[in-house]
Amino acid sequence: MMPESPIRKLVPYAEDAKKKGIKVIHLNIGQPDIKTPQVALDAIKNNTIEVLEYSRSEGSEQYREKLAAYYKNHNIDVVAKDIIITTGGSEALLFAMGSIADADDEIIIPEPFYANYNGFATASGVKIVPVISKIEDNFALPAIEEFEKLITPKTKAILICNPGNPTGYLYSKEEIEKLAQIVLKHDIFLIADEVYREFAYDGVKHYSIMEIEGLEQHAIMIDSVSKRYSMCGARIGCLVSKNKEVITTALKYAQARLSPPTYAQIASEAALETPQTYFDEVITEYVSRRDILIEELSKVPGVKVANPKGAFYCIAELPVANADDFAQWLLENFEYEGETVMVAPAAGFYSTPGLGLNQIRIAYVLEKEKIVRAVRILQEALKAYNA
Amino acid sequence: MMPESPIRKLVPYAEDAKKKGIKVIHLNIGQPDIKTPQVALDAIKNNTIEVLEYSRSEGSEQYREKLAAYYKNHNIDVVAKDIIITTGGSEALLFAMGSIADADDEIIIPEPFYANYNGFATASGVKIVPVISKIEDNFALPAIEEFEKLITPKTKAILICNPGNPTGYLYSKEEIEKLAQIVLKHDIFLIADEVYREFAYDGVKHYSIMEIEGLEQHAIMIDSVSKRYSMCGARIGCLVSKNKEVITTALKYAQARLSPPTYAQIASEAALETPQTYFDEVITEYVSRRDILIEELSKVPGVKVANPKGAFYCIAELPVANADDFAQWLLENFEYEGETVMVAPAAGFYSTPGLGLNQIRIAYVLEKEKIVRAVRILQEALKAYNA
Repeated sequence: MMPESPIRKLVPYAEDAKKKGIKVIHLNIGQPDIKTPQVALDAIKNNTIEVLEYSRSEGSEQYREKLAAYYKNHNIDVVAKDIIITTGGSEALLFAMGSIADADDEIIIPEPFYANYNGFATASGVKIVPVISKIEDNFALPAIEEFEKLITPKTKAILICNPGNPTGYLYSKEEIEKLAQIVLKHDIFLIADEVYREFAYDGVKHYSIMEIEGLEQHAIMIDSVSKRYSMCGARIGCLVSKNKEVITTALKYAQARLSPPTYAQIASEAALETPQTYFDEVITEYVSRRDILIEELSKVPGVKVANPKGAFYCIAELPVANADDFAQWLLENFEYEGETVMVAPAAGFYSTPGLGLNQIRIAYVLEKEKIVRAVRILQEALKAYNA
Repeated sequence: MMPESPIRKLVPYAEDAKKKGIKVIHLNIGQPDIKTPQVALDAIKNNTIEVLEYSRSEGSEQYREKLAAYYKNHNIDVVAKDIIITTGGSEALLFAMGSIADADDEIIIPEPFYANYNGFATASGVKIVPVISKIEDNFALPAIEEFEKLITPKTKAILICNPGNPTGYLYSKEEIEKLAQIVLKHDIFLIADEVYREFAYDGVKHYSIMEIEGLEQHAIMIDSVSKRYSMCGARIGCLVSKNKEVITTALKYAQARLSPPTYAQIASEAALETPQTYFDEVITEYVSRRDILIEELSKVPGVKVANPKGAFYCIAELPVANADDFAQWLLENFEYEGETVMVAPAAGFYSTPGLGLNQIRIAYVLEKEKIVRAVRILQEALKAYNA
């Protein structure tokens, strides 16, 4: 059975609130409000296509070559044939799971994790085995012994998201190296969802699994243009690996679905020309949003918040027993001066039942004033809810 | 294991032939050479997107509403909520199989069938059970008793492609009604891949499974803009059903992969405004291509050819023992005045081992002069191969 996204069930309540004239501030979604780079938008407007043809199943040669050059600039030594262009990072994850695991095989993932991993695992017949990371530790990598305990003959990979959705945690070079050692020891794969790779803050450099010498045959990187260039609607991602068998198998999946979208590849190729100033501005903006969010949340009585170093999410623990119920109540029964907030209950990001019940995920993809306002509303709501 | 497409393994041989300076005429691919409607191309060039956002997982409301109106004009009574926009017809097939079948469930498909069905079945853990249709019968629907024999408690659906790839066969209203009766009797689904629905020739009207009264809860239609508007690179298709449970489950798959591509939805929505004259011209062109192809093939000694009434494919039986070997030989060892042809061996479109070994699929998506030339080369090749 395909699981439902933890946010989706709240959507009808949000729609009802809006019908009642209540303004809903969305802290629940990962859709950036940042403008897409002009160079990408222009490439689409200036395209000269007359017959909108299939591209190659692995993506256009030209785009893959430019993308390889981009990775080389980021200390990742790959060539075009190590890359398969996919329809979003989502499809890359689906291809990765399908390529390395058979039905009933297992993949270990630190939880809380991106809820849609559940959907891809279900679609691939793969079992997710969670290893718990904790808000007290800022969601750092659990002790490597915790992974070791969970590895069985059915374990095919460890999957991480770095920087993490929903945690915002940025794994250190040392943590990545520890993971490398364990996957090499057990001859399994390390899959890293690095779609937020550019969003590393506080001067800390993102360290990719593709940078580790000796891990070449065990590393599969998932990437996407969605967040990097605020191009979520393009649906262009990629699967990158130096392991030829992985690429050959993933290519069969790619061939079955014919090709990734052509227009979006044009935009994505052009986006590679985005000037560094664009990213500098975006990072500055996200850091100031994060700072104000953490600062404001810290002032709310009973709220505990992790300190995210990347992506644009954070997990907050609330003084409530059940954040699912609270999130629904916010939409169904609360308003403060005509406004309310929509949050993502964090239990849906955990695989172990009963975990994260008092946590929510907040996406800071809106302007600072709105963030301040949203936390104010949250504070008033907690008072009313607990009264 | 993901199966490989029957055409893919020939690609390196075609590339080698081209490197030797031999011109390869492609009879093997379903990529139309027809120009995409101007209205769709213009919509992309004139788009005013500034933030390329996710669309809704089920596709944009506006597009789905217009698409429902389009179907109403084609005697199919559906509304927006019966439609999920997918990333190509491919994804719609994947969602359909995933939504109605569990691992090891069975779907009955008349063979020869579109080879990528194998890939989607493998990805979904579903078993394809073939029922044989014959070139002698023009690939008409096999006797309904043949289906009946194959139905087990694990059978979840019968899947047809209408008009057919690779056969070009257009099922009659009577054949569709027979299928409807059997799926109702056994309470299973009828899935119809109708992506070639506009390509019905000789004055015969395409009859959709969605037109059958009483079949509403058992019918799932797969459609796509790829062939209709010569927009294969858009990657926009849809899954259509009046069965709410099917739509609800398929929507979970849609939500896991977030959304279909945004630019391509803009083009697809605009394409609905394509004037009828466009289709009239396209149909006239394909009919004259088909006529000349069949006429020329019929003149080649030892060649037997089915009489296609739709799509733009036909199956031809050749005076060779192994068309796989012949197709490779054409690329590896043959040229006629500096040219050769690439064909799709038909065995890959059969699920039963040993069937279709002497057959090839020809796609008539190129100009008439090229078709005549290609058949001439094929004739010379058969002479040389059999000498």
